[in-house]
Amino acid sequence: MSLDTARLVPMANAIRALSMDAVQAANSGHPGMPMGMADVATVLWGEYLKHDPKAPDWADRDRFVLSAGHGSMLIYSLLHLSGYARPTMEDIRNFRQLGSPCAGHPENFLLEGVESTTGPLGQGLAMAVGMAMAERSLNATFGNDTVDHRTWVIAGDGCLMEGINHEAIGLAGHLKLGRMIVLWDDNNITIDGTTDLSTSEDIKARYEATGWHVVSCDGHDFDDIRRALDEAVEDDRPSLVACKTVIGKGAPNKQGTSATHGAALGEEEIAAARDVLGWDHAPFEVPEDVLADWRGTTARGETAHSEWDVRLSTNPDKAEFERRMAGDLPEGFSLDSYIQSLMAEPQKVATRKASEMALGQINAMLPDTIGGSADLTGSNNTKAGGIGPFTADDYSGRYVYYGIREFGMAAAMNGMALHGGVIPYGGTFLVFTDYCRAAIRLSALQQVRSIYVMTHDSIGLGEDGPTHQPVEHVQSLRMIPNLLVMRPADAVETAECWEIALRQKDRPSVLALTRQGLPQVRNAPDETDMSSKGAYRLKKAGNAAKVTLIASGSEVHLALECAEQLEKQGVGASVVSMVCTQLFDEQDAEYRAEMIPADTLRVSIEAGTTFGWERYTGEGGLTIGLDRFGASAPAGDLFAKFGFTADAIVPQIMNKLPK
Amino acid sequence: MSLDTARLVPMANAIRALSMDAVQAANSGHPGMPMGMADVATVLWGEYLKHDPKAPDWADRDRFVLSAGHGSMLIYSLLHLSGYARPTMEDIRNFRQLGSPCAGHPENFLLEGVESTTGPLGQGLAMAVGMAMAERSLNATFGNDTVDHRTWVIAGDGCLMEGINHEAIGLAGHLKLGRMIVLWDDNNITIDGTTDLSTSEDIKARYEATGWHVVSCDGHDFDDIRRALDEAVEDDRPSLVACKTVIGKGAPNKQGTSATHGAALGEEEIAAARDVLGWDHAPFEVPEDVLADWRGTTARGETAHSEWDVRLSTNPDKAEFERRMAGDLPEGFSLDSYIQSLMAEPQKVATRKASEMALGQINAMLPDTIGGSADLTGSNNTKAGGIGPFTADDYSGRYVYYGIREFGMAAAMNGMALHGGVIPYGGTFLVFTDYCRAAIRLSALQQVRSIYVMTHDSIGLGEDGPTHQPVEHVQSLRMIPNLLVMRPADAVETAECWEIALRQKDRPSVLALTRQGLPQVRNAPDETDMSSKGAYRLKKAGNAAKVTLIASGSEVHLALECAEQLEKQGVGASVVSMVCTQLFDEQDAEYRAEMIPADTLRVSIEAGTTFGWERYTGEGGLTIGLDRFGASAPAGDLFAKFGFTADAIVPQIMNKLPK
Repeated sequence: MSLDTARLVPMANAIRALSMDAVQAANSGHPGMPMGMADVATVLWGEYLKHDPKAPDWADRDRFVLSAGHGSMLIYSLLHLSGYARPTMEDIRNFRQLGSPCAGHPENFLLEGVESTTGPLGQGLAMAVGMAMAERSLNATFGNDTVDHRTWVIAGDGCLMEGINHEAIGLAGHLKLGRMIVLWDDNNITIDGTTDLSTSEDIKARYEATGWHVVSCDGHDFDDIRRALDEAVEDDRPSLVACKTVIGKGAPNKQGTSATHGAALGEEEIAAARDVLGWDHAPFEVPEDVLADWRGTTARGETAHSEWDVRLSTNPDKAEFERRMAGDLPEGFSLDSYIQSLMAEPQKVATRKASEMALGQINAMLPDTIGGSADLTGSNNTKAGGIGPFTADDYSGRYVYYGIREFGMAAAMNGMALHGGVIPYGGTFLVFTDYCRAAIRLSALQQVRSIYVMTHDSIGLGEDGPTHQPVEHVQSLRMIPNLLVMRPADAVETAECWEIALRQKDRPSVLALTRQGLPQVRNAPDETDMSSKGAYRLKKAGNAAKVTLIASGSEVHLALECAEQLEKQGVGASVVSMVCTQLFDEQDAEYRAEMIPADTLRVSIEAGTTFGWERYTGEGGLTIGLDRFGASAPAGDLFAKFGFTADAIVPQIMNKLPK
Repeated sequence: MSLDTARLVPMANAIRALSMDAVQAANSGHPGMPMGMADVATVLWGEYLKHDPKAPDWADRDRFVLSAGHGSMLIYSLLHLSGYARPTMEDIRNFRQLGSPCAGHPENFLLEGVESTTGPLGQGLAMAVGMAMAERSLNATFGNDTVDHRTWVIAGDGCLMEGINHEAIGLAGHLKLGRMIVLWDDNNITIDGTTDLSTSEDIKARYEATGWHVVSCDGHDFDDIRRALDEAVEDDRPSLVACKTVIGKGAPNKQGTSATHGAALGEEEIAAARDVLGWDHAPFEVPEDVLADWRGTTARGETAHSEWDVRLSTNPDKAEFERRMAGDLPEGFSLDSYIQSLMAEPQKVATRKASEMALGQINAMLPDTIGGSADLTGSNNTKAGGIGPFTADDYSGRYVYYGIREFGMAAAMNGMALHGGVIPYGGTFLVFTDYCRAAIRLSALQQVRSIYVMTHDSIGLGEDGPTHQPVEHVQSLRMIPNLLVMRPADAVETAECWEIALRQKDRPSVLALTRQGLPQVRNAPDETDMSSKGAYRLKKAGNAAKVTLIASGSEVHLALECAEQLEKQGVGASVVSMVCTQLFDEQDAEYRAEMIPADTLRVSIEAGTTFGWERYTGEGGLTIGLDRFGASAPAGDLFAKFGFTADAIVPQIMNKLPK
């Protein structure tokens, strides 16, 4: 249903006014994008976007991602004008102030209707790819009656210039995600000036080369916008709609320049803009008729929602669909019996292999998982449990060949997790967390369950050498708030870590896994669920406890060897497996002190940087690690070279013990 | 000069044989790429590449980057066959073994002739862009007689699929780096299988859309390779040469499949390959005539080198050119007098502004610098000292508008630093070190002087909110070996840090700078060069020393306030400015103990994660920090909310002091 232009103009100007006024009040923010894209956004939200402001979490709503997140006043305006409970006008008045949900950049955990946290450029669009994947996956399972929606993106030149854009659109084009539509705010302006300062690219040709449908429109002509959106909706490829716009449109002296990009327009220019726009209302005032027109646009979505409710109510899969969208695991889901089978028949395997074994169980029990790897399937051991490829021809597959696109993969996983209904996991080498760290951070900030299967931990990777050996990565990932970094020591801990990761509804996990085989150190059938406290005592001291060895992952069995040698010399040594520092830090002081008693010599052993381990060893302790880049050689040679042997470590401990 | 095919065939087969035999001996490595690209590489090195194996560091040599670094046996073979002193055949026999310079991936610090450390995909090509930029920059200064060489790259599908490829080629196309030629190993194979598993892109069309010249050839037809290379050399745009090849060419049963990509072929297949190739020599044996043909190819480069020597000897700029290529600063270079001017007239400025002031001095004194920003010029304050833009029309400019390409920028900086003759610096927001962390790591591993100007540190960034607030970044960057992370407290320290960074010939630096103004805490003219020890005592205790406050950057003045309040309560408190933990950790134990005496209560104050600070505070100490994501609000409100005020900190200290 098209609205007539006479009514659309003030609707769009309401966005412009709110945006310039809010940025002015905060004296901080980005008015240029919301003002430039106000017309496009009005057509999109007013006539195309399927949503119900009274039920922002309706599962079959269209997803809208403001990838150019700095233009946050655009989405705050749209949410308010469309009638979402928040932001209120008071929230908007407090744009960028402490406590307002109208943060500098849109944050999914602050406002319903904000589907993802954006601002780090390029990632919004890349997350939208994941949302569109999740939609197709759920559609393949639950059918058109239940899952049938689009993913819309507003992106700027920055989003398109970032490297991740290449990865994201390559994936979307390959997977023919035809229900994804990107509205590009084609305004020729970046922060530094006009785009020709830094780029000469034919963006449309590039998108076409990557399997996208491309259409252009005048972003200030409502009919032309509709024509382009109709064409995009029709085409079965993902679509780029190049919307030619004037940044800061409406600000008569500054529009079309980078001056409108990231700073308040100033009182004078705002007054001039009010004149030009014919907007004679006070700041933060939207006249009744304009608001009524905006509120009227949502009937379409409300109707669609009620019809959908009716269909779902008779759907035999209703309970399962609702379980999945709620992010709950199936009742009774557990890896206990698998873990007991390991206890009965211990396995000496690499933890990446142990992860594959766990995934064999998980993927069979849990239809929610969608796995994948950035072109290291056989190395990450991520394809397990009989799942088949997710392809343009078959969206029912649950394994994604992401290609050599670590960052794009991680962002797509975030998008899937944000969409809901699926649990994404994906693998690459641990060292390449550096390639996708910005997305891992957004997993944590957005509080989503993305599970990273990061294999080829530390120097155990061996011959590939220092470019491929993550020596600082585990510790530096541990510093990201709200992220669980788990480094299991054997097949049992690996299974426990998988179960922990799956049970985190609101935080992501990184599993740091070995290339090389590790002995199974956990064999007592009655000792279950030990990893969930982050660290636990794997071995008690035999002699009077003098030493506490704290190790993780591939160094746990080494710690056991050290303990054995120490005990032979009459020195009591306990071994603590530090599976996850974050979970351990969350335990009470008593538990922590009991695990790592301050009256023992505390020794950390981890084949990575020692920086940070002092938290657990205290200053009188000993931190065994690797404070340099690795080298290329077989793993065994490297562990020996860098002193990760009981023979090298035990004398250091004996030396350090009070005489 | 073309060699005839009958001689080229065995020359290429020598590469194939060495590659398959070395990988077999190591039972680890990647034979597929060297075997597939052997013909192309033989034409390139034999007939086009300008180099002199007897003088691998000749300034005007062509640069060759093996971006697909996993195919390292290709470059080891080429270096050996061409007559470089290393690798010897013994080195090659010890491929991937401890101590051999023939590491799993090529490492620039292990072998002359290896221009860059590659393996992390996409970065080699992106570094080559920087090399080509450095070449044009030096050419603009020193002229064709002195600087006139090409940059050649061999890249695989992985390099082209990575996001950084988009950034790198966008920059190269825009800057019209016509002397850069990328040979794409177009073999349709990645680790997971055929490329159509994960991509449907028309790569040639994409390169064309980005301003590149594109030409294709049969990578196993010497004449066709020459035709394509000639065309690429002729064209004034950067060129992509799509070399259609068969991966593992020569291995009769495995060629053309991913089985040859990353594993030894096996004795049987190698024997079969020897038959097919007509190569009846023992492993690691190259017949005299083939070796002689290879060695004969370098006369061309040797002649060019001697002619160049003659030209340089009469060049009035010889000394300056040699100084710059040696990476030395001009004699007498110093910021002392500028620093003294700050002492005389203290400045309350943001450290990003202080960095601009320092750069104003540096860029005027030091023609070596090439600055830039990833589209945040006015925020990073990186354009200073009157330098103009480096553009396709004017390569004499020293300021690069990198566009919204953080990763591409960082890799280009590494390439420039590797090329030599220039000192690259570049800026973005500190939080976006996550976007380019993999390149920062390669700066450190490659031991190059890339200087990162990372502004908008911590919650001082304010309203942009948690997506833009680096709370874990400073600490997590500190974990990268061989990287200096400096967080200066005021204008004086900022200048000192710049001088330290410039004086590091073999390691990169990150400057973490504030958005907000900071008082100048260093005002004593006789206290100079204090930052070079990493940390120093800024204020001595007045009363008997009970507390040592250790702070960095924007928290140093806060530490001084805390000290003042403590002194008023009779508690002696010294303040240590921790400018750079890495430099401090390098000091002797005595200095470290003197700065941070163990008999005081040690308190760290840094507006970031506390994890790691226990190294300096000991376990009885106090770590004041921020172990969560930030929020969107004015900076002052955030510092108050998160407890970064003397009123919030001092009581915690008083509480912790022994009663």
